[in-house]
Amino acid sequence: MELSDRARAAQDAIEPVTSFFVSLRTMDRQAGVVDLAFGDPHEMPLRGLVDALRANLEPRATDWFAYKSSLAPARETIAEGLRGELGLPFDSDDVAMTQGAFGAIALAFRLVADAGDEVVFPEPGWFYTPMLRAANLVPVRAPLTPDGFDLDVDAIARAITPRTRVVVVNSPANPTGRVYARDRLVELGAVLEAASARNGRRIWLLSDEPYRRIRFDGIGFTSPAECYPWTLVDYSYGKVLLAPGQRLGYLAFSPLIPDDVRTELRAALLPLQMGLGWTFPDALMQYAVPALETVSIDVAELQRRRDLMVAALGAAGYDLTVPEGTFYLWSAAPGGDAPAFVTALAGRGVFVLPGTVFDRAGHFRISLTATAAMLERALPALRELAPR
Amino acid sequence: MELSDRARAAQDAIEPVTSFFVSLRTMDRQAGVVDLAFGDPHEMPLRGLVDALRANLEPRATDWFAYKSSLAPARETIAEGLRGELGLPFDSDDVAMTQGAFGAIALAFRLVADAGDEVVFPEPGWFYTPMLRAANLVPVRAPLTPDGFDLDVDAIARAITPRTRVVVVNSPANPTGRVYARDRLVELGAVLEAASARNGRRIWLLSDEPYRRIRFDGIGFTSPAECYPWTLVDYSYGKVLLAPGQRLGYLAFSPLIPDDVRTELRAALLPLQMGLGWTFPDALMQYAVPALETVSIDVAELQRRRDLMVAALGAAGYDLTVPEGTFYLWSAAPGGDAPAFVTALAGRGVFVLPGTVFDRAGHFRISLTATAAMLERALPALRELAPR
Repeated sequence: MELSDRARAAQDAIEPVTSFFVSLRTMDRQAGVVDLAFGDPHEMPLRGLVDALRANLEPRATDWFAYKSSLAPARETIAEGLRGELGLPFDSDDVAMTQGAFGAIALAFRLVADAGDEVVFPEPGWFYTPMLRAANLVPVRAPLTPDGFDLDVDAIARAITPRTRVVVVNSPANPTGRVYARDRLVELGAVLEAASARNGRRIWLLSDEPYRRIRFDGIGFTSPAECYPWTLVDYSYGKVLLAPGQRLGYLAFSPLIPDDVRTELRAALLPLQMGLGWTFPDALMQYAVPALETVSIDVAELQRRRDLMVAALGAAGYDLTVPEGTFYLWSAAPGGDAPAFVTALAGRGVFVLPGTVFDRAGHFRISLTATAAMLERALPALRELAPR
Repeated sequence: MELSDRARAAQDAIEPVTSFFVSLRTMDRQAGVVDLAFGDPHEMPLRGLVDALRANLEPRATDWFAYKSSLAPARETIAEGLRGELGLPFDSDDVAMTQGAFGAIALAFRLVADAGDEVVFPEPGWFYTPMLRAANLVPVRAPLTPDGFDLDVDAIARAITPRTRVVVVNSPANPTGRVYARDRLVELGAVLEAASARNGRRIWLLSDEPYRRIRFDGIGFTSPAECYPWTLVDYSYGKVLLAPGQRLGYLAFSPLIPDDVRTELRAALLPLQMGLGWTFPDALMQYAVPALETVSIDVAELQRRRDLMVAALGAAGYDLTVPEGTFYLWSAAPGGDAPAFVTALAGRGVFVLPGTVFDRAGHFRISLTATAAMLERALPALRELAPR
């Protein structure tokens, strides 16, 4: 046992995911299998992404590929976008460029929380536990509402203790696709304000928003940042570009955070990002940010795929959560046993993700990043195993 | 005080660097200033690097930019290179692709060490303290030898306690340019073996080798991995390509580590690298690895610059450490007060790095990544402030 306790804890925390991967590998990977397990691209990368990289590849200065921290043009583009989308006066100096949302979350946890602090996050939710364990933090789950997986402010309130330092909100939510309404977030803000006063220590809100621009039916988006001043916002370009292998994201400090606190946080970014492994995106990716601001997957097409699957699976009797955004469709597993259902489905050549990886063994998740043809091919097997 | 203690500790640890940056900014950045402070590129990026990126930019598959962990062709290229250079049978499964050496060091510290563990590292040395503080580890300095900055095995032995978990060796060394001889490393291996037995707990060796391929006069290189089985090797492409803004490096487990332990470490890589923020290099950089294996700055030209500066500054009476590798030239500051010397030199338009950032206030460092013309322009001011 030479591994550190924290590495082992991170490993144990994703054991359900690892087991699932192993089981996928041991299944026959016959030709024609339809893999709807992950939010992977199944079409060629966006031309706009490739063009943005190509346009910035040829060096224009001796320091083109020198050490970079957060570059000003990228930060300014992002702050301007946030001002438009969130309606808050974000400052470009409050934007830390990171290697995707994963990098931003890892940074946020260490920026404000110390070893032993508790972090409350939604269940079902994605990958927070290994990230917290690797940061010596204590994961505390707060379930979403039993009916419809809405934000459950009471459940969060119950999960808060004197050691709570951060509460994570993920909207649009993975795996449920839910987008939380302003009223719920305002209630949450009041709860966090009261709990911070009671604790005599500020509770931070981390708004995990990588799917912010992937919403359906014109549904509005309210960031928790609009409802609680002490909010850190993380974002990834990996979703809207469907290119998570090129690491690009950011952590932004809400402009509603008091000035002196933002000054303190800003000054810690370079030392901490260096300390974590010089965790800035590659120069090339940062140069591309202004051009990437208007590049996106076809959300209308994604919505059509959602509509197709919701209609087909609904008609087959699946108990679905109709997604308002994200790449995903979340459903109760027929019979209530997701691993058994997922295995039976895999036997028919269709892979989906069991809810066990989200601590919900009764549900499963379908990725809508598949092509329409893949989804059509998956439907017979899904109908065959349907509740009715 | 909303910052975490660990973020503040990381920040405090690089305060000398931050202060130096601030002082640079407040100095007149007049035209014609010669900046020899950092190992920055002062010529256009290597054509081989740009070509390798361009050759891999156009997607060849739908998953070209999908989530990537450590890619097999990159790992295999690296393992083969390590087998040739270090003479040990490295396995490609023991190579973790990381975002530069910074990323590899951050990974290594968390892979084997837990909060409160002590890590011994060389002084003068670079940036280990903020990395350790960010990882909740305890920095312990072991001075290099007073005469010539050789590895001081006795000093390391004295620095080891029952809580020591990792000892860092950096060869070729920043800032001194020293390359340590096999005999010293064999002695160190014996010390670590004895101390591990005494402690009843394994002490790991982290061999920080980003300058491994940048050596002068045909001097050989012995990796600590050849002299002590329990060694993790980190490397960066940022030095040999002089392009640290494109993050690419690796952590490799020595094949001399017992099989069961390597199996344990391998299994922890994906969970831990995910937990730290999905800290794999960009897909594009990983695709480029095979092509980059033979791309390098002109080390012979670097050696000519070293020779020029060593001769000129030696003649002017500077007390130099003649570098056997790296980008740097390390010297005692005339008068013994590096900050005063550096400020006086800056007043004459030449920037060098004060030893304060390495905890050695009596020395300074010159970067040889400058052009020959820049070095020639710097010489009059350096001669003017020389000891004789």
